[in-house]
Amino acid sequence: MQVKIAVNQENFIKKYKTVRSHSETICKPLEIEDYVVQPIVDVSPPKWHLGHTTWFFETFILKPYNRDYKVFNDQYDFVFNSYYESLGARVVRTDRGNLSRPSVTDVYRYRTYVDQHMEVFLQNTALSEELTALLELGLNHEQQHQELLYSDIKYILGHNPLFPAYSINSVFNQNSSQNNEFIKIESGIYEIGYQGDDFCFDNELGRHKVYLESFEIAKYPVTNAQYLEFITDGGYTNFKYWHSEGWEWVKENTAKSPLYWHYIDQKWMNYTFAGLKEIDLNEPVCHVNFYEASAFASWKGLRLPTETEWEVASPDLNWGQRWEWTDSAYLPYPGFQKAPGAIGEYNGKFMISQMVLRGASVATPEGHSRSTYRNFFHPRHQWQFMGIRLAK
Amino acid sequence: MQVKIAVNQENFIKKYKTVRSHSETICKPLEIEDYVVQPIVDVSPPKWHLGHTTWFFETFILKPYNRDYKVFNDQYDFVFNSYYESLGARVVRTDRGNLSRPSVTDVYRYRTYVDQHMEVFLQNTALSEELTALLELGLNHEQQHQELLYSDIKYILGHNPLFPAYSINSVFNQNSSQNNEFIKIESGIYEIGYQGDDFCFDNELGRHKVYLESFEIAKYPVTNAQYLEFITDGGYTNFKYWHSEGWEWVKENTAKSPLYWHYIDQKWMNYTFAGLKEIDLNEPVCHVNFYEASAFASWKGLRLPTETEWEVASPDLNWGQRWEWTDSAYLPYPGFQKAPGAIGEYNGKFMISQMVLRGASVATPEGHSRSTYRNFFHPRHQWQFMGIRLAK
Amino acid sequence: MQVKIAVNQENFIKKYKTVRSHSETICKPLEIEDYVVQPIVDVSPPKWHLGHTTWFFETFILKPYNRDYKVFNDQYDFVFNSYYESLGARVVRTDRGNLSRPSVTDVYRYRTYVDQHMEVFLQNTALSEELTALLELGLNHEQQHQELLYSDIKYILGHNPLFPAYSINSVFNQNSSQNNEFIKIESGIYEIGYQGDDFCFDNELGRHKVYLESFEIAKYPVTNAQYLEFITDGGYTNFKYWHSEGWEWVKENTAKSPLYWHYIDQKWMNYTFAGLKEIDLNEPVCHVNFYEASAFASWKGLRLPTETEWEVASPDLNWGQRWEWTDSAYLPYPGFQKAPGAIGEYNGKFMISQMVLRGASVATPEGHSRSTYRNFFHPRHQWQFMGIRLAK
Amino acid sequence: MQVKIAVNQENFIKKYKTVRSHSETICKPLEIEDYVVQPIVDVSPPKWHLGHTTWFFETFILKPYNRDYKVFNDQYDFVFNSYYESLGARVVRTDRGNLSRPSVTDVYRYRTYVDQHMEVFLQNTALSEELTALLELGLNHEQQHQELLYSDIKYILGHNPLFPAYSINSVFNQNSSQNNEFIKIESGIYEIGYQGDDFCFDNELGRHKVYLESFEIAKYPVTNAQYLEFITDGGYTNFKYWHSEGWEWVKENTAKSPLYWHYIDQKWMNYTFAGLKEIDLNEPVCHVNFYEASAFASWKGLRLPTETEWEVASPDLNWGQRWEWTDSAYLPYPGFQKAPGAIGEYNGKFMISQMVLRGASVATPEGHSRSTYRNFFHPRHQWQFMGIRLAK
Repeated sequence: MQVKIAVNQENFIKKYKTVRSHSETICKPLEIEDYVVQPIVDVSPPKWHLGHTTWFFETFILKPYNRDYKVFNDQYDFVFNSYYESLGARVVRTDRGNLSRPSVTDVYRYRTYVDQHMEVFLQNTALSEELTALLELGLNHEQQHQELLYSDIKYILGHNPLFPAYSINSVFNQNSSQNNEFIKIESGIYEIGYQGDDFCFDNELGRHKVYLESFEIAKYPVTNAQYLEFITDGGYTNFKYWHSEGWEWVKENTAKSPLYWHYIDQKWMNYTFAGLKEIDLNEPVCHVNFYEASAFASWKGLRLPTETEWEVASPDLNWGQRWEWTDSAYLPYPGFQKAPGAIGEYNGKFMISQMVLRGASVATPEGHSRSTYRNFFHPRHQWQFMGIRLAK
Repeated sequence: MQVKIAVNQENFIKKYKTVRSHSETICKPLEIEDYVVQPIVDVSPPKWHLGHTTWFFETFILKPYNRDYKVFNDQYDFVFNSYYESLGARVVRTDRGNLSRPSVTDVYRYRTYVDQHMEVFLQNTALSEELTALLELGLNHEQQHQELLYSDIKYILGHNPLFPAYSINSVFNQNSSQNNEFIKIESGIYEIGYQGDDFCFDNELGRHKVYLESFEIAKYPVTNAQYLEFITDGGYTNFKYWHSEGWEWVKENTAKSPLYWHYIDQKWMNYTFAGLKEIDLNEPVCHVNFYEASAFASWKGLRLPTETEWEVASPDLNWGQRWEWTDSAYLPYPGFQKAPGAIGEYNGKFMISQMVLRGASVATPEGHSRSTYRNFFHPRHQWQFMGIRLAK
Repeated sequence: MQVKIAVNQENFIKKYKTVRSHSETICKPLEIEDYVVQPIVDVSPPKWHLGHTTWFFETFILKPYNRDYKVFNDQYDFVFNSYYESLGARVVRTDRGNLSRPSVTDVYRYRTYVDQHMEVFLQNTALSEELTALLELGLNHEQQHQELLYSDIKYILGHNPLFPAYSINSVFNQNSSQNNEFIKIESGIYEIGYQGDDFCFDNELGRHKVYLESFEIAKYPVTNAQYLEFITDGGYTNFKYWHSEGWEWVKENTAKSPLYWHYIDQKWMNYTFAGLKEIDLNEPVCHVNFYEASAFASWKGLRLPTETEWEVASPDLNWGQRWEWTDSAYLPYPGFQKAPGAIGEYNGKFMISQMVLRGASVATPEGHSRSTYRNFFHPRHQWQFMGIRLAK
Repeated sequence: MQVKIAVNQENFIKKYKTVRSHSETICKPLEIEDYVVQPIVDVSPPKWHLGHTTWFFETFILKPYNRDYKVFNDQYDFVFNSYYESLGARVVRTDRGNLSRPSVTDVYRYRTYVDQHMEVFLQNTALSEELTALLELGLNHEQQHQELLYSDIKYILGHNPLFPAYSINSVFNQNSSQNNEFIKIESGIYEIGYQGDDFCFDNELGRHKVYLESFEIAKYPVTNAQYLEFITDGGYTNFKYWHSEGWEWVKENTAKSPLYWHYIDQKWMNYTFAGLKEIDLNEPVCHVNFYEASAFASWKGLRLPTETEWEVASPDLNWGQRWEWTDSAYLPYPGFQKAPGAIGEYNGKFMISQMVLRGASVATPEGHSRSTYRNFFHPRHQWQFMGIRLAK
């Protein structure tokens, strides 16, 4: 986490309010009941996201830096800690959806309470570099949870047998080109990693040289139309396109399509935020996992790009609608250092068994995307707004 | 299920309203969020109970007997069917707590809709014997779910780290005697099973003779004070009091006390509907499973009664505060017959691997208890209002 | 366990040798490898049976009654204890098949060592009543394991893809009548439970009166021909014949027939000790579990007998080829008492969640069957020589 | 897989015999029973290894290239196929230890049969480049299983409560230096990947340039003495050294030391091929998984090398006693191509969720190690001869 620039206090308060209120805007269309459930372990109840992001400011800013601060409820530490071992016992992750309390109303009260204290605090405190870094981290952390909110809400509603719509209006503008153009990059030494004075995560730091063989990378992400060909051609029934682990996943889940696709009355339907709709052939394919992305590429006789290739080529790519699976594992950059204290648990301890996704998605909050951003998930995950870009 | 008496239509409507509104009264103290969660598979979300009991009337009365009836929502069959294979696909039981929709408001609308149609139907229809039996079954079914509502709500709130109270007022009056009096019954031929013209379940029918050896049975149920001695004497750490299966349960769950007991600051606390309280030594012990009941009896050098002994002795017993574990498996009476059709799935198909409980509890609705009533649960279950009576 | 008669020492030694050598005779056709594996948790490796029965004599006779006795290997306590909590730590049951040592040769050495000491001991010791009871228990215990040896060997070979024969010669003579005769028993008071001076298990003791309604019971067990009709008529695809728990079992296991039946090239084949053979229509059906037995009876419009009915009718029945599932749970007789000490763990602690089987099977050792014998297994088990008798 | 050199037929036959007989030599100290068991899914029964490596030659050489060849037993395809989807159904991996047949004798017969046919075939066939590549692959494949044989035998014997020795003589010579010397490598462009005319696996091919920042790497692997300090300092009880996934592994397994270490009577004992011995402080630490290797490095304030660093530095390292965990995921080199047909399933389909190990171990057969060799296992695995080298 780094912030080098001087921060204008007024602007910061404004930014704080903007980010914080966006989380609530995302939840506005929800019924109370939608805030509570956790249909799979990866999907957290929306009220948990609202509470946890608030707890983050309370725990990392107000408690250590504001000596007069009284916590809203001292049991919330137990309820809203996500994974910080440094910070004591917590509700086991699988139990988040078993908790009817704190109620949604109480969670919003908690937000209001913390926001009021934060705003007073921000007005009255000189922002040291350390503090500014924590504040920026808190806001970026909340933005990450905003994207999770979209993914989790979609999962909750999209796995309900009534297929309720989140909104009758279009939520995201999504479309792509069927164009198959490839960008060619010459071999040579390149640099990757974050450079600049704005915020970035610790896992992007340590800009460093890499040597790349020449390669080609698709200008556009893979579309539903293109993915449908893979399905129709028996992509989900031929082991040879799949990793061994991916093929196990196909068989155990009798997988036949991306998440949210349903074959009904001879048509491929897709659960969208507006309800069940016929698939839109021009949209970039979404909600595929690494196994599917990789099998698709293999079926095409091509491959996925590495994260290095992606970053080097990024200025020429049409990106930002889907998080794009790369064939790079999530591992530390040369010279990577964990931050001291609980914040050090933010990224480093997850650098095993996950794959890097690059880009950003329609659900990524404004101002939260960079070409150096390293997102990461287990290869089996589909529920984020994940898609595919080909390389060769 | 049997009803032989002529039914007064007006009285029936009144009874229908009384029973139906009681379910809603039980739920009154709940927050919306409390209606939604399912912390363990056995505990259903309260909104599911409200919907399922309504679906029962819609499915077994309105749809077959009222040809003009239009279902409220044709997807509710899938959502609110509990276990009737005859009636098609349904939400798997473990998923009940993953459904945020239908919302609580919609479930109440569903209740109102079905109640209005039921009342019109009841006013305008001659009640045949068959129909009356179904109606009685529907009401008794709802009463069973009222007891489940109490048990499930207690589980939901009592397993929340905030230990919220359901009500600050006392909900049930519970106390017993520390008196150790035993009733002696002579050997001989007795009769058990339901006899009479009121409602009873099919599993109580077929009154039949049994031969009993002479036995003694405690007049009062076991109290918290008595159970505490068992705990203090190492009851949970000595395998010799336990069934093999029970001892596995103790070890896997590191069981140390009845459900809802917590040893905090050198005191045994008990989660009650009014929140966490010190245990009341005079209450009959509650929320123990068959293994615990049986281990307690074994520690005492005594045993649990059989269901036959219980029923024969019942006129002399002080009963009705706890469902009492018997050492009888849930099996058919001589001549037991399943009802034809879906209703036949009500009792018979569960006659394996469960133990009979006799009596009734503080949570049993008024008018729903009889000395011939055969309740049944798996030996591991604790979450009903279950207690212990000794025999020798 | 009871033995009242005076025992002739010489005869006893002879009996000891006969029983002990029979276990080894059963294992004679095995390859070393067959002694080692444990394909499911219920099936123990044959070498474990040979060791465990030997350990029983070492532990309950030689160690306590022969002060000079030196144990063969002090780690065998850990390896060969089955379930006696009183006797300390033991290999977890699921691990029995993971142990290549002690080798088969070592186990036979262990048998020889213990047998030699037992024979000397028997020649030189006055047999008290207590000791005689333990000795009889040891022999009956070994006989129970002889039947388990047959069942487990059949499972091991019958689940090998090569379907090796245990013996090319016929091992058991098995056949029944297609005769559908029913025996009628009048209502009245009867007595059940063991009476006499020979050995019986503690669970048979406490002969007591029971009142029976009149009933009818089939003279012969159900045959393969009769069971095949059930299969052909869709017995395994119609939930209505099944207990709820049984139907889950059918679906989870995609059950379609008794264990060891395979439908190959339009024919029903059956793995037998002589290898894969076409099913013999005249044999009593074998290797069905309680769910299947009960579903078959339900399909017939009949039921299974209770254990009381079975025992009362037994003099008129053709029995002894199959253990016959009853619709009685395994529970204590009135006045049942556990023996003191480790032996008390023999029967009583299993009196929950199991069903009683009556009779005996072709695999039961000579002299080990009685009409009062109460065998018991979980309702899901098929791998014993289990069959069906109908009642109404 | 590549072989460019001309092959001398005579030498090849000699090599074939040498490699094949080495597998049998490894198994010589075993009892028949040791060949059969599979205590965990990753450990295959030794007889399976002997059969599978034989099946490899039968399937990939004799069947396609020798038209007169008759298979030894046509059911062995089902029994000895490991993971080749192209080659049809196979015993599920978890069932390998449930098969008592084919017997050990039959497996050795199978080996003899195939070896005789192979030798005749090799004498009479002109070895095309394709064929030579397959033959070399078969031999290298068998060598990989020789190392697995050592690992699996150690697991089988080392997890037996009797801790039997494999051999009273020392099997491997293992020791290291406590020297903490680090080799410094300057930044710059390097090349990695196989270059030459001998055999290598497909995953080593595609020699390519990489850019490395300057780094330092330990000349010697970490010793038991050094690892013991980590244990003593609370390494297994402090989450901060561990990946999140590693910490879960520690808690679930209550891990406290490398595999095979036992703290007995105040001493750290180690199961070795010669039985249970006090740990040798000068041996390189062995049987640690990636989580442990990584936590150890983190405790030291250092890190694991990447596979690229390792390969570049390898000429200066003292390596070959332990497979050394790198902080590199097992992913394709630029330009990686799967071989066509079933052989294409050899490596590529495993390139996900595994980490690369470099070097070789005391159990690696002579002639089977190269500095470009890419071994790979899941991060949780300990049972190979795996150790640690530090970098900074």
